[in-house]
Amino acid sequence: MTAKRRRVAILGSTGSIGTQALDVIARHPDRFEVVALAAGRNRELLREQVERFGPRIATTAEDGAEGLRRVALESDPDIVLAATDGAVAFEAVFAAVQRGTDVAVANKELIVAAGELLVAAAAASGAQLLPVDSEHSAIFQCLVGEEASAVAAIVLTASGGPFRCTAREEMERATVEAALAHPTWRMGTKNTIDSATMMNKGLEAIEASRLFGLPASKVKIVVHPQSIVHGFVVFTDGSVKAQLAAPDMRLPIGYALAYPARLPYHPAPHAERGPAGTASKELAALGAQPEASELRYDFEPPDFERFPCLRLAYRALEAGGTLPAVLSAANEVAVTAFVEGRIAFGEIARIIEGSMDRAAGRELSLEGLRAADRQSRSDAHALVEEIVRASCC
Amino acid sequence: MTAKRRRVAILGSTGSIGTQALDVIARHPDRFEVVALAAGRNRELLREQVERFGPRIATTAEDGAEGLRRVALESDPDIVLAATDGAVAFEAVFAAVQRGTDVAVANKELIVAAGELLVAAAAASGAQLLPVDSEHSAIFQCLVGEEASAVAAIVLTASGGPFRCTAREEMERATVEAALAHPTWRMGTKNTIDSATMMNKGLEAIEASRLFGLPASKVKIVVHPQSIVHGFVVFTDGSVKAQLAAPDMRLPIGYALAYPARLPYHPAPHAERGPAGTASKELAALGAQPEASELRYDFEPPDFERFPCLRLAYRALEAGGTLPAVLSAANEVAVTAFVEGRIAFGEIARIIEGSMDRAAGRELSLEGLRAADRQSRSDAHALVEEIVRASCC
Repeated sequence: MTAKRRRVAILGSTGSIGTQALDVIARHPDRFEVVALAAGRNRELLREQVERFGPRIATTAEDGAEGLRRVALESDPDIVLAATDGAVAFEAVFAAVQRGTDVAVANKELIVAAGELLVAAAAASGAQLLPVDSEHSAIFQCLVGEEASAVAAIVLTASGGPFRCTAREEMERATVEAALAHPTWRMGTKNTIDSATMMNKGLEAIEASRLFGLPASKVKIVVHPQSIVHGFVVFTDGSVKAQLAAPDMRLPIGYALAYPARLPYHPAPHAERGPAGTASKELAALGAQPEASELRYDFEPPDFERFPCLRLAYRALEAGGTLPAVLSAANEVAVTAFVEGRIAFGEIARIIEGSMDRAAGRELSLEGLRAADRQSRSDAHALVEEIVRASCC
Repeated sequence: MTAKRRRVAILGSTGSIGTQALDVIARHPDRFEVVALAAGRNRELLREQVERFGPRIATTAEDGAEGLRRVALESDPDIVLAATDGAVAFEAVFAAVQRGTDVAVANKELIVAAGELLVAAAAASGAQLLPVDSEHSAIFQCLVGEEASAVAAIVLTASGGPFRCTAREEMERATVEAALAHPTWRMGTKNTIDSATMMNKGLEAIEASRLFGLPASKVKIVVHPQSIVHGFVVFTDGSVKAQLAAPDMRLPIGYALAYPARLPYHPAPHAERGPAGTASKELAALGAQPEASELRYDFEPPDFERFPCLRLAYRALEAGGTLPAVLSAANEVAVTAFVEGRIAFGEIARIIEGSMDRAAGRELSLEGLRAADRQSRSDAHALVEEIVRASCC
């Protein structure tokens, strides 16, 4: 078995997804071998990871883009887990895909901005892009064994975030603390704020469109507060498949790393109740109401008025080209400004919209994307400063 | 396209499943050709069907088992739809499977009684057994593209029937009218009463165990009053897939007949509401609450005390051999006696249990099954007569 271990390189090993991936890998030493790790600024945690997993290459943010390239290429991995935030790993991931290496994609900004280029490169090289986001993993799993032509639509579920039931005026002035209080998922700060604005779901709709080759009209969103159903595929014959799982990122991470195999079961912590034949244990393992034998799942349409980021994301998806990169870059700037207490929650969408309105049409190339990213950040920063100036005078 | 039409033979063309299958076939004349029809006693409807679909062979109940054999074999079909009630089509279906012809199975009693023999014969000949029951179609669809070794459990959903919330004492004396008032599905009388006792789900658990090669311990049941989710597959990695559809038997019938293709969409009657990206239309098409944009799905464990038929079915499944045939035959007799007003609703389970207690162990062969079936019917009839005598004195 040892000879067939899958060689894994992780970009972003000290982040939320990176540490959970290493947790999955540690449980399955017969299946996986860590060949390279790229961390950000957490040198101490990286040192622990290096001692524990013994990669041949380990880099930090100080090594820059060249460090990421070394981790993604020189370690000769079977699969690269792209789990850095933002745009820093663009070139490294692109080079790995061009080389024909499979990439598990946990960085949605990467696919939002450069999805068309990455998908084309993967098609040319034979590399596979495996989604790690729970929603995209759900869609991917529901598509296994099905013909692409039989897909009528896909539906991504959204928890609705902490402001699912909050009035618009209250959201406008929401605190950072309130925005970080996500009801079901534990994630990094950027993802949690994106969930509060529902930009998370907008970015995921763009990501899904790219990964599954579907137009905006076939990518749908539904709010599902329990966060147990992660996605649906609607087929042409009226049949619908859904994927469900406890809200634990280690499940989709494990699926992406082990695909097409499924990892052995982690015994659920809840004892089986009821006679043979009842599904109490299986229902409890889904985790929504571990103490109850009854489950309830709700689905409701998203509110595009209270969550303007959704509207902006569909605008970018429909326009295509470099506008998704503009959206994503402006969102990063606006979220950072909000977390730093410089702008109100309600300004996030307005800054993104402003940057999109100012964006020039550019060629869809790595160069064009870099230029669009730079310009959008510059525009968003300028809009933040305008707001800060206006609010203190 | 005409040259590639799939040649379909239907056993039970004038019944509930048979007529819906012809409805599906009529909508897709480019895909299907009806080569043979076997009806029961409804000669007038058969005549209409013959005029409309022009099969080469058409038989009625008067032609007996030989008529069913002719329809299943002499018409040289690509697929046989087994949609007769009870045990009458055993030999015809068995012969078709042995010959290597695919069979779409809408007759659960057939698989309950002779499933082990049919599955072995299909494995030997290369014939495929395609489930038509919505629950088994759901499981089958969720298993497409997945490894059998990755399946931890399957879960069949049950509407709970008309007595889901009825107290035990009230159920004991329930009227035929009340038992026939199924909340979500339109089915034949036998199936509807089986749904009221939940024997339907017990038989389906046995059928699922046979069709999917899983032990009783991996076949679960959950009550889902909305009847939109038809089944779940729980995988070893903790991921769960579900299949959902409107409660319309034409969907699983069409899936079985067209497999592995999916038929083109029947446009849903509900207009889309909400902006692009919302899944309102897709949710509405699932049909539970066509007027509402919000959906709610509930799941609760089945009550093995109020529905003793479930317990009896698992007992038969665990014992195996000819006991499932005994269970099914006694159930047919008991349901008929109930519908004829000769016994109370609560007696159905007691008659089945009595027949199971009296059953002798027999060899698992067509001969052994026939003998077990005859003996069980005889025992069940005797038990009915005992009850009738006791109640009139």
